[in-house]
Amino acid sequence: MRTIVVVGGGAAGATAASRAKRLCPSCRVVLVEAGDVITHAPCALPYAIGDMAEESIWLFEKEEFEVERGVEVFLRTKAVDVEGGRVKLEGERGGAVDYDALIIATGAKPWTPPVEGLGLRGVVVPTVANLQLVKAVLSAARRVAVIGAGYIGVEMADVLTAMGKHVTLIEGGGWPLPRVLDGDMGRLLASHMAAGGVELRFGERVQRLEGSGGRVERVVTDAGRYEVDAVVFATGVKPNVDLALRAGAKLGPTGAVAVSKYMEAGPPGVYVAGDAAEAVHKVTGEPAWIPLATYANKMGYVAGTNAALDKRAVEFPPIAGASVTKFGDLYVGAVGLTEAEAARRGLSPTSYVIKSTDKARYMKETREIAVKAVIGGGRLLGMQIAGHSAIVGAYVDLAAQFVGEPAERLFHAEYSYMPFTAPPWHPFAVVGRLWLRNYHRPNGPPAP
Amino acid sequence: MRTIVVVGGGAAGATAASRAKRLCPSCRVVLVEAGDVITHAPCALPYAIGDMAEESIWLFEKEEFEVERGVEVFLRTKAVDVEGGRVKLEGERGGAVDYDALIIATGAKPWTPPVEGLGLRGVVVPTVANLQLVKAVLSAARRVAVIGAGYIGVEMADVLTAMGKHVTLIEGGGWPLPRVLDGDMGRLLASHMAAGGVELRFGERVQRLEGSGGRVERVVTDAGRYEVDAVVFATGVKPNVDLALRAGAKLGPTGAVAVSKYMEAGPPGVYVAGDAAEAVHKVTGEPAWIPLATYANKMGYVAGTNAALDKRAVEFPPIAGASVTKFGDLYVGAVGLTEAEAARRGLSPTSYVIKSTDKARYMKETREIAVKAVIGGGRLLGMQIAGHSAIVGAYVDLAAQFVGEPAERLFHAEYSYMPFTAPPWHPFAVVGRLWLRNYHRPNGPPAP
Repeated sequence: MRTIVVVGGGAAGATAASRAKRLCPSCRVVLVEAGDVITHAPCALPYAIGDMAEESIWLFEKEEFEVERGVEVFLRTKAVDVEGGRVKLEGERGGAVDYDALIIATGAKPWTPPVEGLGLRGVVVPTVANLQLVKAVLSAARRVAVIGAGYIGVEMADVLTAMGKHVTLIEGGGWPLPRVLDGDMGRLLASHMAAGGVELRFGERVQRLEGSGGRVERVVTDAGRYEVDAVVFATGVKPNVDLALRAGAKLGPTGAVAVSKYMEAGPPGVYVAGDAAEAVHKVTGEPAWIPLATYANKMGYVAGTNAALDKRAVEFPPIAGASVTKFGDLYVGAVGLTEAEAARRGLSPTSYVIKSTDKARYMKETREIAVKAVIGGGRLLGMQIAGHSAIVGAYVDLAAQFVGEPAERLFHAEYSYMPFTAPPWHPFAVVGRLWLRNYHRPNGPPAP
Repeated sequence: MRTIVVVGGGAAGATAASRAKRLCPSCRVVLVEAGDVITHAPCALPYAIGDMAEESIWLFEKEEFEVERGVEVFLRTKAVDVEGGRVKLEGERGGAVDYDALIIATGAKPWTPPVEGLGLRGVVVPTVANLQLVKAVLSAARRVAVIGAGYIGVEMADVLTAMGKHVTLIEGGGWPLPRVLDGDMGRLLASHMAAGGVELRFGERVQRLEGSGGRVERVVTDAGRYEVDAVVFATGVKPNVDLALRAGAKLGPTGAVAVSKYMEAGPPGVYVAGDAAEAVHKVTGEPAWIPLATYANKMGYVAGTNAALDKRAVEFPPIAGASVTKFGDLYVGAVGLTEAEAARRGLSPTSYVIKSTDKARYMKETREIAVKAVIGGGRLLGMQIAGHSAIVGAYVDLAAQFVGEPAERLFHAEYSYMPFTAPPWHPFAVVGRLWLRNYHRPNGPPAP
């Protein structure tokens, strides 16, 4: 009997374990999780805090997973070392397990800048484990500083504003989501957040937190001082690579574990999947570390399949960073490179920004959707989309299929239409049309 | 100076004329329209009748088009013949115009079955031209029969139900949208329509309309008699090919005009675009006639560009019939072949029907989305989607990019996710996963 050990019960690990057992019913599959729950959904944290999600944001209980899926689940158990085909465990199920295949899915952990005052009461870094504490702290606060305007920062600002808090959002970049949006699109989101009552402090860096009696009272940045009752850090995550390194894996240039497209980490039988692993970027062809649940799920599926079948059966394809978030009723998403990033890489991008609507424009109650397309070397390098409709997520999915492809595909692609769902010229087709026009107008350059 | 004559002021013709003038500012561009308005939107008719659209469902007035775009617009003028590089016109701007390029965009006209009683008052066939009459007739009616459950029939039933009418929908097929939905998906829509109060009569054929005093009172089918105050025909359209035939074009097997992918109809300088023209089907590779506004716009663009530049500059790609409609809050869309059609063509399809949600499933207020994927020969042949969200249209657009491609692309493709916009496993990725599993399960067939 082969034994497959999976370390980490999040998206990647739970998927890997489940898949491995399904494809190899005769295998022993052990899922090792340091915390109290498996299949937790960290993307849901802001909404769990804001009571917009159901009570439990994990999808399976240990018992369900064991009975329905046949996977042994070791909770409150930490994998501390790997040597000679054996994983050393500490905690509730301490000891050692010999493996034929080992899937390391240890994920990522929140990172906070090393500032003074992090230990004050009222300062929180949300995780699945401390959800109830964070909820209690934030419910009791009136004025909250959110540090960092990445996805989680924007979502925390959204939820806290909806809860009636005064929110001060502090971000070192010049606008929200500075890594995935250019300034023009980022400022659309910023205006909407400002109109929603958020106090926005861009281009400021937190220097220290001050308080009295062990409780936070003030955030001090390089440009201001903000009186607060609570502080939420949303300053990003770092990959948990310790166990992978102990197993003999190597880190890539991003700081996450370098893996093959089959999720192999190098040492025989060792796979790394999820937020701990690197991927390949679809546009640049370079290693990329983009820790998102969608990739973690799929990497877990790939690692679980290949481990169970003991061959290179499925591969994890290059990624372009398709992502989406919202503030209030404004949804913002992006995929591929920003114009700024494309320029930095010498790709001489041009961009098209167009305003469209979610319905035919003769319909009542249309909502605006803004699309920015970044094109370089004749290829679509990236898209950014903002609009007052959840359809923005689906637009990002569609854009993801075109990223890296010749830009004229945006024109030639097929889109559906009826008055309630889209304008007759889909905004992507309009971008493709503008692009094609370059080559057809009088005295235009020759077509590529 | 070259002269480009465009016949037909709908989606294809107006786009063609506008594009031609833009790319050849020195050309004389004449747009000939038999009716009173240009850039009309027949897809909006049901919603204009139901007051859900703005007052005018055309996008440009003649004057705007002439002043802003530099196109000469001849309204109330009919092109009756083409001979020796000259179009013969009758009506307001009667006479003849010599052309260097002729773009025929005469569209389609409603078709009604040849039954007795079509001339009774209260019997209407909606068009852009008779909109006010149709609106008056239907507003005054209490019980309305809608004949035909294609897109327009379903939409008329939706609008009339919302207006408080008792609607009897009569359709020869076994469920609504029988050409684009299989029975399983069609019955989802049928239940929703029945729950919305529509009296559904499937598998019935209208034999005659009866009335007294010249006014309709009854629809008689091969299976029943229905007392009504008004009857709306939504029994499809036929291409308007007369002028194209006079110009020397040939019809294809679908009954529409056979054209090259550059929209050339054969005779020198003659293009046919829009609902009068055939296209190539992406899945079957055969001629297809799918009269939709999206194709008409794009065909017009292609014909206008090629006519203006006098070369084969852009092509119109194969199509898969991406389309969407709604009844109440249930949106239903499809692209590619149904399972039944694929089976008829000997493609030995298998299908996957999965239920998903528009949000992560731990969120409150999720809405169900059902996806049916039809796979044959390792390729995605078609998809049908139904759900209580306008996002169904965007799902169809995404599906359209995968139709004709290897089915595993559904798994490998990239999708975005956040709790408000999608589940972490996109339903298309789930289909891809189910498909891949065939090849990975114990004793499964070898991977393709």
